[in-house]
Amino acid sequence: MGRCSLLLLLLASLTPGAASPVSPSLRAPSSLPWSTSFRSRPTITPKYSIRYIQQKVDHFGFNIDRTFKQRYLIADNYWKEDGGSILFYTGNEGDIIWFCNNTGFMWDIAEEMKAMLVFAEHRYYGESLPFGADSFSDSRHLNFLTTEQALADFAKLIKYLKRTIPGARNQPVIALGGSYGGMLAAWFRMKYPHLVVGALASSAPIWQFNDLVPCDVFMKIVTTDFSQSGPNCSESIRRSWDAINRLAKKGPGLRWLSEALHLCTPLTKLQDVQHLKDWIAETWVNLAMVDYPYESNFLQPLPAWPVKVVCQYFKYSNVPDTLMLRNIFQALNVYYNYSGQAKCLNVSETATSSLGVQGWSYQACTEMVMPTCSDGVDDMFEPHSWNMKEYSDDCFKQWGVRPRPSWIPTMYGGKNISSHTNIIFSNGELDPWSGGGVTKDITDTLLAIVIPNGAHHLDLRASNALDPVSVQLTRSLEVKYMKQWVTDFYVRLRKLN
Amino acid sequence: MGRCSLLLLLLASLTPGAASPVSPSLRAPSSLPWSTSFRSRPTITPKYSIRYIQQKVDHFGFNIDRTFKQRYLIADNYWKEDGGSILFYTGNEGDIIWFCNNTGFMWDIAEEMKAMLVFAEHRYYGESLPFGADSFSDSRHLNFLTTEQALADFAKLIKYLKRTIPGARNQPVIALGGSYGGMLAAWFRMKYPHLVVGALASSAPIWQFNDLVPCDVFMKIVTTDFSQSGPNCSESIRRSWDAINRLAKKGPGLRWLSEALHLCTPLTKLQDVQHLKDWIAETWVNLAMVDYPYESNFLQPLPAWPVKVVCQYFKYSNVPDTLMLRNIFQALNVYYNYSGQAKCLNVSETATSSLGVQGWSYQACTEMVMPTCSDGVDDMFEPHSWNMKEYSDDCFKQWGVRPRPSWIPTMYGGKNISSHTNIIFSNGELDPWSGGGVTKDITDTLLAIVIPNGAHHLDLRASNALDPVSVQLTRSLEVKYMKQWVTDFYVRLRKLN
Repeated sequence: MGRCSLLLLLLASLTPGAASPVSPSLRAPSSLPWSTSFRSRPTITPKYSIRYIQQKVDHFGFNIDRTFKQRYLIADNYWKEDGGSILFYTGNEGDIIWFCNNTGFMWDIAEEMKAMLVFAEHRYYGESLPFGADSFSDSRHLNFLTTEQALADFAKLIKYLKRTIPGARNQPVIALGGSYGGMLAAWFRMKYPHLVVGALASSAPIWQFNDLVPCDVFMKIVTTDFSQSGPNCSESIRRSWDAINRLAKKGPGLRWLSEALHLCTPLTKLQDVQHLKDWIAETWVNLAMVDYPYESNFLQPLPAWPVKVVCQYFKYSNVPDTLMLRNIFQALNVYYNYSGQAKCLNVSETATSSLGVQGWSYQACTEMVMPTCSDGVDDMFEPHSWNMKEYSDDCFKQWGVRPRPSWIPTMYGGKNISSHTNIIFSNGELDPWSGGGVTKDITDTLLAIVIPNGAHHLDLRASNALDPVSVQLTRSLEVKYMKQWVTDFYVRLRKLN
Repeated sequence: MGRCSLLLLLLASLTPGAASPVSPSLRAPSSLPWSTSFRSRPTITPKYSIRYIQQKVDHFGFNIDRTFKQRYLIADNYWKEDGGSILFYTGNEGDIIWFCNNTGFMWDIAEEMKAMLVFAEHRYYGESLPFGADSFSDSRHLNFLTTEQALADFAKLIKYLKRTIPGARNQPVIALGGSYGGMLAAWFRMKYPHLVVGALASSAPIWQFNDLVPCDVFMKIVTTDFSQSGPNCSESIRRSWDAINRLAKKGPGLRWLSEALHLCTPLTKLQDVQHLKDWIAETWVNLAMVDYPYESNFLQPLPAWPVKVVCQYFKYSNVPDTLMLRNIFQALNVYYNYSGQAKCLNVSETATSSLGVQGWSYQACTEMVMPTCSDGVDDMFEPHSWNMKEYSDDCFKQWGVRPRPSWIPTMYGGKNISSHTNIIFSNGELDPWSGGGVTKDITDTLLAIVIPNGAHHLDLRASNALDPVSVQLTRSLEVKYMKQWVTDFYVRLRKLN
């Protein structure tokens, strides 16, 4: 498991030379009879304005003076000049509108926090492309896609907002983010503590780098989720890989597999089988990430507790290979066809197109090297060691750059971050990324909250009647701390004046 | 007073298009009869090893993977593995050996701190040239000369030392620096608190940016130094500019001035007169900076309390213009010819060649924009307003880049730095740069020490029998705080193990 996005484990990145997920569909997809119905909740579109700010393409060099338009969203419905605050979402690897719509927590607490909401898009994602359509053309154009540049964009945006919005100057700003955005929120507080009074870093695996945590922790958590979601579930999946291998080796095996799984593009060579297994593995990983207690539509439209739903098909681990494959298909179907719209399954897609796969693939090949591995014993996946040399060579082939795996810990402190203050690290216990997260208090202002029954940044989602008590308590605690930061800010401000 | 180095106010930078201080000497300099003798102290050359580390030219981008050799000096004579420390000098704009030789304080306290000493050269200075002889050829090659890159070099070096020197891994590192190096030490602690337990930032004008302090504070302090160093001293200098102007306008004025001041290159046009006055002004500024209580050789070989010596020639402000000029010459002579070696005065040179003028000129045209101005009323200089537009245009002409004057405060927090810890800001009261420094405690771990009778980073110099009590006390206090940081570090370490 190599260059996996925080939100989606990019299948493409696991297969050297096949990184750009172009649609390989060549045959007309047939209509499928196995659609389940998707009972979608009405989506409440929050009211925000879309704005743009001119940013330097290179904050850290002066030779290139080019600028680009960074997009951000702003909502001030509940903002109060008197005693208010600014909640600033540090956008991650995708379209900021999508993140905005999936961060209901900020909308839910806006009134209580008297808060202006700002959602800043990350450069090289969504509409914020430094070189327009050429942004991903080569390593020269991609050169400015780094966490440091992204944080500098946020810094300039905050200074700009404070300068230009009457009443905003003397207000406390809090950084919030989930997943990679949570890492950015935490790092932003570490590097620019003069601009934000604190950060809520939800599901932010800031330690999933280098040798800070064992590389197998991620897959172990996925496995635990599955084994806790149904009898024999993880064991069935552990056995499924060999079933696929055995079937693939038979005469018409590839065709049979392609049809049994309703693949849009049939498998034609043995290499495709590895691709298929990576894609299936990634699906289980994604399911663990979005194992929310209610029907949702984050990476895909899904039923409540989707891992439990999937595990219904894996009750028996000791079944004939063909039945195992039919069960896998039913399980995949939960993830890829809950809406009932899919006509076939596309092994090149695992999640929403709102995520920027090219950008993340490059980031994973430069700074964001987050090792994962599996052994097939303590986890339900095929053994897959972490091979930095191979990873680096793949990156060089794909992007012409080599990763610097020790850079992020050098830059952001690794495990030695105790001198910082006012950061909440929240992690869902079900979330595989929690293995690389901060799950114990470091000091009395670097706080960890672990959410039992919580998946990937559940706390940042809109409140829901089906929310477990744990996440309700988490959110109360988060609000309590944030209010304390705001109060402290105004106390200091009054002392200065 | 525009792009002035912290250590030398670059005359060249005041004159658009004439920025590279090439030697203009065309005529054979005559031997001068007015040499004073320089009673030099024997210099104790500290014992250090010269080492090199391969550094990425660009820490913040992956397109250029080129490396260069950064030089550093290391001395472990007094280092103890057990309970010891690492004192790390964050090198500034010049040859690191020169800084090493002028930072006797570190050598003086090495035994008491059981310290390994490391002096890291700043990229683009001394021997640490990212592109060798081409490093200054254009803005493309200069693109990696920034404070952020320099700090990243320091971070990588510290990690490398800890990894490779047996016994160094679990030792506390303290950053120390003077002047621009002091700014780097403070910023290093702010940005990389996981790598250094604290910083001693001596004479570090971290607030001499944008509008954080009034631009006239610098020249006011120079003026105060002169007015306190002799009767009528600053008043004489204030009047001297008009004397020069009047003489220059007379028929043979330029020739007379050239001869009276023993200039290596005679003045030939009225423009040269402005250049001359800038050079003289810079000389007074430099004298204020290095107004040390004993004979020294930092920017130039100088007597003890050189401003007092100079002021002996300015006892009477109401003298004929020609006498005023002869007095100026005598005063300049103190600064430029204390060694008795000078055959003429060179208006393109004001300080040691160990400082990197090209590099600093570029830095002053990009990040390090430190506004100064004068009004001729509250200071003894000709009125000179701060004109950002003109400054920027000059920079563009010279280097093809435009300064970003608000960047440093955005990056390093401006006046809002109270969330950081363990930084000592020391400032000499005589030092003009103290106007942009931190001279009041910010918190109980962000400490300010003001040294009455202290010039530019006097505390970092070797102890001297003629040191005022104030600097002796300052150094004791600094050692006390540093020892506390070391103790705290070991207490935390024991708790973790």
